[in-house]
Amino acid sequence: MALVVQKFGGTSVADPERIRNVARRAVRAAAGGDRVVVVVSAMAGETDRLLRLARQMHPRPDERELDVVASTGEQVTIGLLALAIQAEGGRAQSFTGPQVRIVTDSAFTKARIRSIDEERLRRALEEGVVPVVAGFQGTDEHGNITTLGRGGSDTTAVALAAALHADACDIYTDVDGVYTADPSVVRRARKLSRITYEEMLELASLGAKVLQIRSVEFAMKYAVPLWVKTSFADVPGTLVCAEDPSMEQPLVSGIALARDEAKIAVRSVPDRPGMARALFEPLSAANITVDVIVQNVSADGRTDVTFTVPRGELARAREVVDAVAPRIGAPVVDSDASIAKVSIVGVGMRSHAGVAAKMFGVLAAENVNIQMISTSEIKISCIVEEKYAELAVRALHTAFGLDAPEPG
Amino acid sequence: MALVVQKFGGTSVADPERIRNVARRAVRAAAGGDRVVVVVSAMAGETDRLLRLARQMHPRPDERELDVVASTGEQVTIGLLALAIQAEGGRAQSFTGPQVRIVTDSAFTKARIRSIDEERLRRALEEGVVPVVAGFQGTDEHGNITTLGRGGSDTTAVALAAALHADACDIYTDVDGVYTADPSVVRRARKLSRITYEEMLELASLGAKVLQIRSVEFAMKYAVPLWVKTSFADVPGTLVCAEDPSMEQPLVSGIALARDEAKIAVRSVPDRPGMARALFEPLSAANITVDVIVQNVSADGRTDVTFTVPRGELARAREVVDAVAPRIGAPVVDSDASIAKVSIVGVGMRSHAGVAAKMFGVLAAENVNIQMISTSEIKISCIVEEKYAELAVRALHTAFGLDAPEPG
Repeated sequence: MALVVQKFGGTSVADPERIRNVARRAVRAAAGGDRVVVVVSAMAGETDRLLRLARQMHPRPDERELDVVASTGEQVTIGLLALAIQAEGGRAQSFTGPQVRIVTDSAFTKARIRSIDEERLRRALEEGVVPVVAGFQGTDEHGNITTLGRGGSDTTAVALAAALHADACDIYTDVDGVYTADPSVVRRARKLSRITYEEMLELASLGAKVLQIRSVEFAMKYAVPLWVKTSFADVPGTLVCAEDPSMEQPLVSGIALARDEAKIAVRSVPDRPGMARALFEPLSAANITVDVIVQNVSADGRTDVTFTVPRGELARAREVVDAVAPRIGAPVVDSDASIAKVSIVGVGMRSHAGVAAKMFGVLAAENVNIQMISTSEIKISCIVEEKYAELAVRALHTAFGLDAPEPG
Repeated sequence: MALVVQKFGGTSVADPERIRNVARRAVRAAAGGDRVVVVVSAMAGETDRLLRLARQMHPRPDERELDVVASTGEQVTIGLLALAIQAEGGRAQSFTGPQVRIVTDSAFTKARIRSIDEERLRRALEEGVVPVVAGFQGTDEHGNITTLGRGGSDTTAVALAAALHADACDIYTDVDGVYTADPSVVRRARKLSRITYEEMLELASLGAKVLQIRSVEFAMKYAVPLWVKTSFADVPGTLVCAEDPSMEQPLVSGIALARDEAKIAVRSVPDRPGMARALFEPLSAANITVDVIVQNVSADGRTDVTFTVPRGELARAREVVDAVAPRIGAPVVDSDASIAKVSIVGVGMRSHAGVAAKMFGVLAAENVNIQMISTSEIKISCIVEEKYAELAVRALHTAFGLDAPEPG
């Protein structure tokens, strides 16, 4: 008798008919002998509607109050789904985040889970009840309502699976699995039957918006097998799990494309200690996330520092950098919003040389100029001009053998 | 420095503009030196929308889950109003019912308040913060979310006022006070400047839907002065308070009209002990509220028992009575849904004889036949044919001197 946490996103519970569909899935799993805990998001569009209302009240709304308003979306869904499961003949009971003591820090709108008291859920499970838990929300130690940030319901589901030592955590979303590349860019992209946590983390952070990145970190930390599935069809999904040392790993598992980046270049900076700190500390203080940083080898005591930021934060980042540049003796600051980041990801890279060289060769053959390069143990990213990005992804997809059907 | 609890109903917070209006009122009161606690309902229509969603999931929804869904309405409003007060330059913090430990019994959808931990509100007030509290909701001792039933926000407000020993509780509603009669029936009805708790209780239970009846009971029990006001204009409201022994009380303070009643007559019942119990216990078991009961003097060992029930429960009540009647030897059961109850209410009746006779005389002069009569210490009710009800109300309003302007 397996214990499974099933998580359903906003599109899976968008209206009463879809909620009934989810209820049938939960009842079927329970009837099949599994013990099931269900985690749900707000009905699609509901969180946005609530936040829009809040912003009508205050241009820069207090985040504690934002969480009070936003967390109602999930609370509505748990009640409705519990009723739907009962209507399908199952037993169910709803639980808000505070009710199952999902205790977080007090970082409103982006809180992190500190602990879960799974006792109440265990009792419900022992009584044959399907607990329906609100994703995305918790309570801090002072009893304030908190939320976990966009996509936080994935994290709730994985955290519950970890706390309950569940056999699996099924994340039902509007895509039916993890693909070798975005199918809207690469027609021949195919669904992966499995992928490692590490690869999924790189893909998630590179802009493949299938899973919230923190949920994957959580799953890896507690070794929770994670299934990405769709609630709209009965097809196998993708298993996100630990690397299987007995298996040959593919060199490259997937290609990611991130378009929402922008580049800032600070030119002719005097090359002396403390320069990088003087530049990046103010950006960090302004809460701007810097992604790729490249510093050229110094020539005549001066160097160029180039880095990328989220495109939506370019204007703010320019303000910060324009103020800092004169102080560090940099005469020129450039920026460019029409760039994209193309990345190849695969745990097989660890043990194979020549992958980077092959990537650069593929891009050169297509006449795509590489503006910046960044690498990790299992990933190589290249910043290219945005208009070449899709061409680059397709060429790499073919060159690394991903067009072929997945080996059984 | 007075401490005031202000409660705003659904129409007062129906949209962002009205919420801003409420915020300005709270900020003004706080700026004037008062300490203010605000209690709010869900935005108008929101509770109905949520309950409709729930009924789409299950024809007879579990009441625990109904409360989970319905209580989100107030939670949205407290967040929005706290933001609006902040936008107006005030300090505010929202609190759900569970957060201020409004502990109730476990009677979902109609829970009763057992205790309130007012400490958190006191702390907020001491820090100069306006606490914005969700009406209508609480938590039982097991941590389940409960609601207090329709109009429950009034009860929340009065209970908080009692717990905090507030100087007054202002109930802002869509009418600007308590009237001598329904102004849509009696053109010359006028607003009362004050009315006693006892009279208000009779009027509330007689169908003047200004205040939830339990909130008036609560206010009387804890001697909380209650103001009925409108948030849409700056006009004085009606003060509901204890009887002032130094003042001459009017004979009749108001005339109430209840249309939503129906009559059931059980004819020729053998007049023996236990008959009434045999009839009314099954109705009580079916959760049907019986209002007026009249039993005629027995003739030849048989008697007629007539009683009224809410019109919406007539069909169910008939089913019960039709099943019971043969068992108690009653050959005939009649019912009539086209009746109405006309009542006069006034604490002055206690010390004056002849009020009932005058009422009956007024109705007789208008040729209105009285079907049933019921009295309490401060109230006389007559059941009449529905089509004469408005005529009866207007005639009584004039006869008891209520058309005249209120004596200063």
